[in-house]
Amino acid sequence: MRVEVLTIGSELLRGDVVDLNGAWLGRRLRATGIDVGRRVTVPDDETQIRAAIDDALERAGAVICSGGLGPTTDDRTREAAAAAFGAALHSDEGVLDSIRARFAARGISMPDINRRQAQVPAGARVLPNRHGTAPGLLLEDARGLAVLLPGVPHEFERLVDEIVIPLLHERWAGRLPRIDRAVLRTTGISESQLMEAVHDLVAPAAPVQVGFLPHVAGVDVHLTAHQDAPALERAGAAFRTRLAPWVYAEGEVDLAGCVGLALLERGWMLAVAESCTGGLIGQQVTAVPGSSAWFVGGWITYADAAKVRDLGVDPETLAHDGAVSEGVARQMAASARRRAGVECALAVTGIAGPGGGTPDKPVGTVWIAVDVRGAVQAQHFRFPGGRLEVRERAAQAALRMLQRAMMSAEPTVTGGVAPGVDP
Amino acid sequence: MRVEVLTIGSELLRGDVVDLNGAWLGRRLRATGIDVGRRVTVPDDETQIRAAIDDALERAGAVICSGGLGPTTDDRTREAAAAAFGAALHSDEGVLDSIRARFAARGISMPDINRRQAQVPAGARVLPNRHGTAPGLLLEDARGLAVLLPGVPHEFERLVDEIVIPLLHERWAGRLPRIDRAVLRTTGISESQLMEAVHDLVAPAAPVQVGFLPHVAGVDVHLTAHQDAPALERAGAAFRTRLAPWVYAEGEVDLAGCVGLALLERGWMLAVAESCTGGLIGQQVTAVPGSSAWFVGGWITYADAAKVRDLGVDPETLAHDGAVSEGVARQMAASARRRAGVECALAVTGIAGPGGGTPDKPVGTVWIAVDVRGAVQAQHFRFPGGRLEVRERAAQAALRMLQRAMMSAEPTVTGGVAPGVDP
Repeated sequence: MRVEVLTIGSELLRGDVVDLNGAWLGRRLRATGIDVGRRVTVPDDETQIRAAIDDALERAGAVICSGGLGPTTDDRTREAAAAAFGAALHSDEGVLDSIRARFAARGISMPDINRRQAQVPAGARVLPNRHGTAPGLLLEDARGLAVLLPGVPHEFERLVDEIVIPLLHERWAGRLPRIDRAVLRTTGISESQLMEAVHDLVAPAAPVQVGFLPHVAGVDVHLTAHQDAPALERAGAAFRTRLAPWVYAEGEVDLAGCVGLALLERGWMLAVAESCTGGLIGQQVTAVPGSSAWFVGGWITYADAAKVRDLGVDPETLAHDGAVSEGVARQMAASARRRAGVECALAVTGIAGPGGGTPDKPVGTVWIAVDVRGAVQAQHFRFPGGRLEVRERAAQAALRMLQRAMMSAEPTVTGGVAPGVDP
Repeated sequence: MRVEVLTIGSELLRGDVVDLNGAWLGRRLRATGIDVGRRVTVPDDETQIRAAIDDALERAGAVICSGGLGPTTDDRTREAAAAAFGAALHSDEGVLDSIRARFAARGISMPDINRRQAQVPAGARVLPNRHGTAPGLLLEDARGLAVLLPGVPHEFERLVDEIVIPLLHERWAGRLPRIDRAVLRTTGISESQLMEAVHDLVAPAAPVQVGFLPHVAGVDVHLTAHQDAPALERAGAAFRTRLAPWVYAEGEVDLAGCVGLALLERGWMLAVAESCTGGLIGQQVTAVPGSSAWFVGGWITYADAAKVRDLGVDPETLAHDGAVSEGVARQMAASARRRAGVECALAVTGIAGPGGGTPDKPVGTVWIAVDVRGAVQAQHFRFPGGRLEVRERAAQAALRMLQRAMMSAEPTVTGGVAPGVDP
């Protein structure tokens, strides 16, 4: 089954507010087997709202609207929907009472302006809103159904979960497919290289749909099956094997969270030494709740003097090879691990730009080193993009290097959290 | 003048990706006097994309499209637009060369699949993309113009700023109203307190429109005038005076950039000591290009042991007052400044949650200290929100404290960059 989504509000078009309701609703509906065919945003204009409702009903037979149910005169969704369904508006006493009660509970008498929110088109069903003054409304005719919901995100979300989705399920019982889904999260491979790598596994008419979702620091591969779990299983296995060198996680976890899990499993702790990323890796790592169980901290050695003073990097290496060099990266990682007294460390030194590039070491040149229990590996990268992209990509590559190094290291402590100093 | 916006991608409808391009473009266009009449999101389906382009041209005479220009077979915008304009697609040698060059610069040969990105509808103008493989395209006929842009946000934004807006200005010269705008960026005051503070300055029919745009770490106040610069001047002065305690910047600069400028003006250098923010402040500071002129680095002392070992925090203070305390924050700041040999330091220690809260020190409790040339100030905060919000708010508050402390400190060195050790 398919619905369209109509989000209403001039502030959405001006960009003063980002439309989060539309994306949230898409996720919720999809999880229950309902596709969103189209999403339209119109300004607070009665004629345009009405036309958009009519169009959506004609195309999809069902439309969920967000916004324009407030008390002020620029809230026009009630009027527009009434016009679309040829219904007159009347004041609903039950709704009026519950709005009055909401104000009374806060010790205020209802402002006259809120009377508008009790206007209900003839024949509409009222969807009670326990979280705000504007109730939802359901209208129906031979063309299909329209649901009107308030745009305030927490009211919108609760009405969708508590009333709208159960209502659609009841209405469409037996006609909603089961959706099965797998997400493989990759890094270190571009979208086009990735497509090349799996092109023979992708067929337009296959029971499993394949989508590629690129981010700054990687590409997510989405596999989706309608009512066909075995097909998803088979496709998942094939993609997993083919993409093994680049898959760092499955599902909703991020790379920092995966690294944390791997550290926890081994009872190891991590320290970081960051130059061009300037704290970005520490920030990503500590964004994971509970990261204090596997992260001790580290050094932001942005200036060369800090590299020497805090991490004991050899001034000769700095003078001879430069700050962005294999030698410096290795010394930073080894020293961070030793000084922090932990099992693992990673170090990043590079040129994020826009300045600082040379013909030999252009912007995007980054050296990354990881030290896992005394075994130091270093790798050279040349990342595309501007300052922020280079830094994001460097952080992701560093965490991925660490993840792979841990996987290939022999864990001597497994199960349980036993942070300790590596001998 | 008016345009419509068409964002293309099944992932947007499924809600896997929030449409940030649409809102961003709305803000950019509005700033130049162009209104967005409608925004439509359609899936990666050639028929639907084509129909949406046709509809938008009919309604508005101009449409800006985002997405569907990638190399994979589910990227259908080129084909759909060619159909809408009745133009055949051909391979453009110039575009192909520049895609090949992008790959060559990274030492890779172009995957065959990227040839699709060199497909150009007959008569279309190529809008070169220095930030990715997919160029933008401009198509035109008697109905109006369609601009096709890649959906990757940083590519999209740069093409809009560098090419599309100048192009529309040239095209519509003399028909765009002059929009004057001021943005006051505030932090440390909630949206509703802020509205209370200025309610007498806001009038619905005034020549200057006032908008409030809340972020996690502050509220931006937008003042907009159509063809009335003197009115904007007057309103700006009134708002500036009223909101002085909370305004940290005007325009597009962020707080880290403002702090950097203040440091540069004084020839001072900064070091950070971060516990609960875990590198976030370092990351924000080093996201500013050229920050090496005023930032040396710092310490991520996430574990208590790191606070003692790297910053010499007194174990007695830790044991007696706890890690989240005025004493620890002050010692972290003072020690970071002294050890780094710089003029300024800031330190943050707090409970970001979800765990770690106590009745005395609930989640959101944060102590921040700043040391400006030996004068240490500390402040206690209780931030609302979850882990990420608490961290964002703590980072913002720390930078704001430093900014205010520097402004009230007597600068002894002004003009020029003369990093040095404070006596």
